[in-house]
Amino acid sequence: MDKIYETIIIGASAAGISSAIYLKRQGIDFLVISKDIGGEVALSGIVENYPGFPRITGDELALKFEEHLKSYGVEPLIDEVISLDKKNSLYKVQTKINGEFKAKTIIVATGAKPKKLQVPGETEFYNKGVSYCSVCDLPLFASKTVAIIGGGNSALEAGIMAANICQKAYIINKNPVFKGDKILIEEVQKKQNVEIIYEALTQEIFGDNFVKGIRYLDKKTNEIKELLVDGVFIHIGLKPNTEFIPDEWGVKNSYGEIIVNKFCETNLPGFFAAGDVTDFPHKQIGIAVGQGIAAGLGVINYLNRLKEKL
Amino acid sequence: MDKIYETIIIGASAAGISSAIYLKRQGIDFLVISKDIGGEVALSGIVENYPGFPRITGDELALKFEEHLKSYGVEPLIDEVISLDKKNSLYKVQTKINGEFKAKTIIVATGAKPKKLQVPGETEFYNKGVSYCSVCDLPLFASKTVAIIGGGNSALEAGIMAANICQKAYIINKNPVFKGDKILIEEVQKKQNVEIIYEALTQEIFGDNFVKGIRYLDKKTNEIKELLVDGVFIHIGLKPNTEFIPDEWGVKNSYGEIIVNKFCETNLPGFFAAGDVTDFPHKQIGIAVGQGIAAGLGVINYLNRLKEKL
Repeated sequence: MDKIYETIIIGASAAGISSAIYLKRQGIDFLVISKDIGGEVALSGIVENYPGFPRITGDELALKFEEHLKSYGVEPLIDEVISLDKKNSLYKVQTKINGEFKAKTIIVATGAKPKKLQVPGETEFYNKGVSYCSVCDLPLFASKTVAIIGGGNSALEAGIMAANICQKAYIINKNPVFKGDKILIEEVQKKQNVEIIYEALTQEIFGDNFVKGIRYLDKKTNEIKELLVDGVFIHIGLKPNTEFIPDEWGVKNSYGEIIVNKFCETNLPGFFAAGDVTDFPHKQIGIAVGQGIAAGLGVINYLNRLKEKL
Repeated sequence: MDKIYETIIIGASAAGISSAIYLKRQGIDFLVISKDIGGEVALSGIVENYPGFPRITGDELALKFEEHLKSYGVEPLIDEVISLDKKNSLYKVQTKINGEFKAKTIIVATGAKPKKLQVPGETEFYNKGVSYCSVCDLPLFASKTVAIIGGGNSALEAGIMAANICQKAYIINKNPVFKGDKILIEEVQKKQNVEIIYEALTQEIFGDNFVKGIRYLDKKTNEIKELLVDGVFIHIGLKPNTEFIPDEWGVKNSYGEIIVNKFCETNLPGFFAAGDVTDFPHKQIGIAVGQGIAAGLGVINYLNRLKEKL
């Protein structure tokens, strides 16, 4: 393939879609390559903090982003980027299925994946009671008992959701306090059918064909305790999807996040990043959107100035 | 009034409302002081680039932001901030009507006003062919003819954009040379469908229900000339609403914009800014939202650290 795109956006996330909307409106020739559409937004439960939508499910918001993108006739190529290369000022994007693509600039908007607990049973019971997506899978546990593991907003949001769907939910927090929003903590504490267990380190998920329970270390008493649950929802953080970016480019920090300045530029000319994949500490949809727009407009400025040099 | 707020948000703009939503969710005690609700969003014509809303009027989007804010029970105080003062680590906010308020932190989200040409027709045809935002509105003029008025980078960038989108664009520059970057000037000069008219003073914008053209004074011949155009894009600068901020605080640049880092912090502890009022070059709703969220979360981090010190 000899075509050289002005830019390739990797990831049809909130950030990637925002970049694409801006680039398309300015008549830039670009390609979006993504494994899915909507990224982490689609995995969110109820979203109440993306300005303009007082209350919307992640699914619905992801669909709105997709519709917005498609209203411009942009169709992402559904594929996975496996590696990047750079020769002179040209980027080469190697995909799993569709071969190689070339571009003058890149916007990485691949988001971040849920982190694993790394305890026995976690992999074995994945999709057999173990889930990282409460909104997708909690409805399967109506009138059942679940454990939610984590101490931040996403665990708290899962707890509130579970209170409405399940018979009973435990929140297993390894710390003595929650890290999440006060408003969510208070909301969770009000739920009659949610029991919070603090200072509890999950040791094992057990079952037969399906999850039957968890064992955790009670750090206050140093005892191993058992809870019988039908489902386990793990919400302990995110890992940025940046394995395909060469370490020697020096654009990643020690967590694998892409280091960007306020214009979403990296230290590599023409290489931009936006959204949860960056080192910006707050992983929020509205911030991802703002960064996606900044990256799109940054690419346009860069291309305007690049042409002159050739 | 002896009450000390955790933070005062000045401006119920896209940015200010976004900050408020996040602060309210965290249970922070704050006040929003603003002349209006919705800021520049409410003055936009059709908005097609705020992700999630493929096409919405500025009015409607401003109303959605307002409804979102009010769903949390936040009622802005409608008033104008006339001056700020700082004593030790306490900010004092002097308003026109309601006296003085005190807060530990400030978020300035007062936006910026486009500078006006102050010619006949400019106000009459606003949003009827006259626009101050090329990024937002040029796509509405695909295959049409536009005049871009100005001589700096934003006029030049609009010219390059218009070359890709419109059939023809004129750039009306009152001076014999451009003030913008050389690289952008050269890029514009290469565009076949962009005609630059130097030493041209716009006198009038005319039309019927919609813009039909402009009249300008050709300073070289001293003649009044006419151009038929479908749209007029005015890029003669923005004036940030920052008169109430003391110059000696050193938070403003020479344009009066508030200088922020990527966390929307200024060089003054506890003093944040977000949206069009900042030195971020792209004045876009989605960027203002992202910055508003970042400022809100930044205030929370700052207050947490402040509490520890006391």
